[in-house]
Amino acid sequence: MQAVQLTKSGLVYRDDFLPSPVPGQIPVQVLTAGICETDLQLVQGYMGFQGVLGHEFVGIAEEGKYAGQRVAGEINCACRACDTCRSGFPTHCPHRTVLGILNHDGAFADRLWLPEENLHPLPDSISNEEAVFVEPVAAAFQILEQVDLQKFRDIVILGEGRLGNLSAQVLASTGADLFVIGKHSEKLERLKHRGIRTSLLSEQTTGRIADLVVDCTGSATGFADACRFVRPRGTIVLKTTVAGQSGPNLAPVVIDEINVVGSRCGPFPPAIAALASKTVEVESLISGRFPLSQAVMAFEQAKRKDQLKILFEISPSS
Amino acid sequence: MQAVQLTKSGLVYRDDFLPSPVPGQIPVQVLTAGICETDLQLVQGYMGFQGVLGHEFVGIAEEGKYAGQRVAGEINCACRACDTCRSGFPTHCPHRTVLGILNHDGAFADRLWLPEENLHPLPDSISNEEAVFVEPVAAAFQILEQVDLQKFRDIVILGEGRLGNLSAQVLASTGADLFVIGKHSEKLERLKHRGIRTSLLSEQTTGRIADLVVDCTGSATGFADACRFVRPRGTIVLKTTVAGQSGPNLAPVVIDEINVVGSRCGPFPPAIAALASKTVEVESLISGRFPLSQAVMAFEQAKRKDQLKILFEISPSS
Repeated sequence: MQAVQLTKSGLVYRDDFLPSPVPGQIPVQVLTAGICETDLQLVQGYMGFQGVLGHEFVGIAEEGKYAGQRVAGEINCACRACDTCRSGFPTHCPHRTVLGILNHDGAFADRLWLPEENLHPLPDSISNEEAVFVEPVAAAFQILEQVDLQKFRDIVILGEGRLGNLSAQVLASTGADLFVIGKHSEKLERLKHRGIRTSLLSEQTTGRIADLVVDCTGSATGFADACRFVRPRGTIVLKTTVAGQSGPNLAPVVIDEINVVGSRCGPFPPAIAALASKTVEVESLISGRFPLSQAVMAFEQAKRKDQLKILFEISPSS
Repeated sequence: MQAVQLTKSGLVYRDDFLPSPVPGQIPVQVLTAGICETDLQLVQGYMGFQGVLGHEFVGIAEEGKYAGQRVAGEINCACRACDTCRSGFPTHCPHRTVLGILNHDGAFADRLWLPEENLHPLPDSISNEEAVFVEPVAAAFQILEQVDLQKFRDIVILGEGRLGNLSAQVLASTGADLFVIGKHSEKLERLKHRGIRTSLLSEQTTGRIADLVVDCTGSATGFADACRFVRPRGTIVLKTTVAGQSGPNLAPVVIDEINVVGSRCGPFPPAIAALASKTVEVESLISGRFPLSQAVMAFEQAKRKDQLKILFEISPSS
């Protein structure tokens, strides 16, 4: 079958990939998949992952109670038996595999395997292309699980790319007043059209303008900007992970007594509901569509700063 | 007068220093002062400070309502007029000076100046040498202002030096069960004698053992160790500031959805009460006493890993 593998020598497309079905997990025929900032970081060496990439997808379950239905899938596969799982944190299971990220072949392939409890059937009102966004929209909803927006007067989202756009839409859907700061006026325009205030980073010469800053930059320099914009005793929600050994000096966190909240994967049900109701609009974020065989070209395009979501069209919907 | 200045060429002792009295502030005759980890970092270039060092002290107020009384002093001098001050965060005033750290000559001198509202008179039951610890003990009490210890089952303090020892004593005084991990068995023994559990860092081969980790290492590598010991969704209270441009990669904060709480200066009243009642014992932490004229030697000794608090004996108590 087809697959896009990350190997020691980089990205490789294969049409003779022999998958290893995971006992007890459900095979899913992948219809459409999306390239995420994390995929770009994995190619840079983040997590040291080797295997089939991809964790944003929609597919058709081939077995189990959702057999024949279109599904999205949560990416953390927990043991469901250890102390962490039984404490209610299965997404943090130390024995977990993570689709396309950690010891688990991912979605840039004709077929993937996931536990049945990870699968969420999708309503017909969500198209395949929209469904690819369930996973990143869920990651944006995680912010609402972790901080109480009502406690903050001034909210800034740093970054207007894929996750920044979705996070802005999700936070705005709660009625929160927010402000997106980014580097690319064209991408900021998209948010302005949705009634969200925006500004170019280069125009923000003063600091300490927000009680809550959400770092969606996906950039190694994002955290330092977040520290600059947050007020003392404020909160930074950190969504950015980057490859490499070093990061920012944390002295500003201590000096300004900042609260930093690491934020990762989120809940699928509100993400599916938001996409079904079109509260969060995603189709205009699609910058390109590729077959898996053009994966290298697709990744090159995804790296460009003027691009938002790049999709792989894998199988036609049945 | 005598003063220990940090200059471009390093530490300099002078006996002909001409101080600039700060209008509206109270002159304080310094009796005893202590060298803090922050002083060692300032000498390494942290904050780019130049001026008279020192922010842990006891002295005699020479004017104002405490004239003739022994006082300890809060180190942040706020404008008391800006939005930050009026929001109740004067220690974060953007216009502040900080004694011996930021635009304010410090305590390693015969005399310093502080606003009257920064001064706290001391009861006779606290000796001069104990009183030098009011400021760092207050910094330890700040942890209790920022996190609710009752929410955490397993608490680890990383670092058994000056601030680690005081933080352990302060947290233990609440009845919290805690565990100090450090590098030096002799310094850990001191805590063990107070009934606090301890362990050598080299013996801690497993991670994820605590819900709350307090980083008091004062070391650039402390944060990575804190990330290793904290459980997913746990909290790290960060006390460490170090010189330099870079720090740790923050990916573990995102992956494990850790909450990082920066923590700096704290409330003086509970610190004074704890020292008066001997709930926090500090005299055994004194490793050496020097006159200001031997400042270079005093700093050399303070840098040694087997040393705890080094004091300057400046003026005899009247």
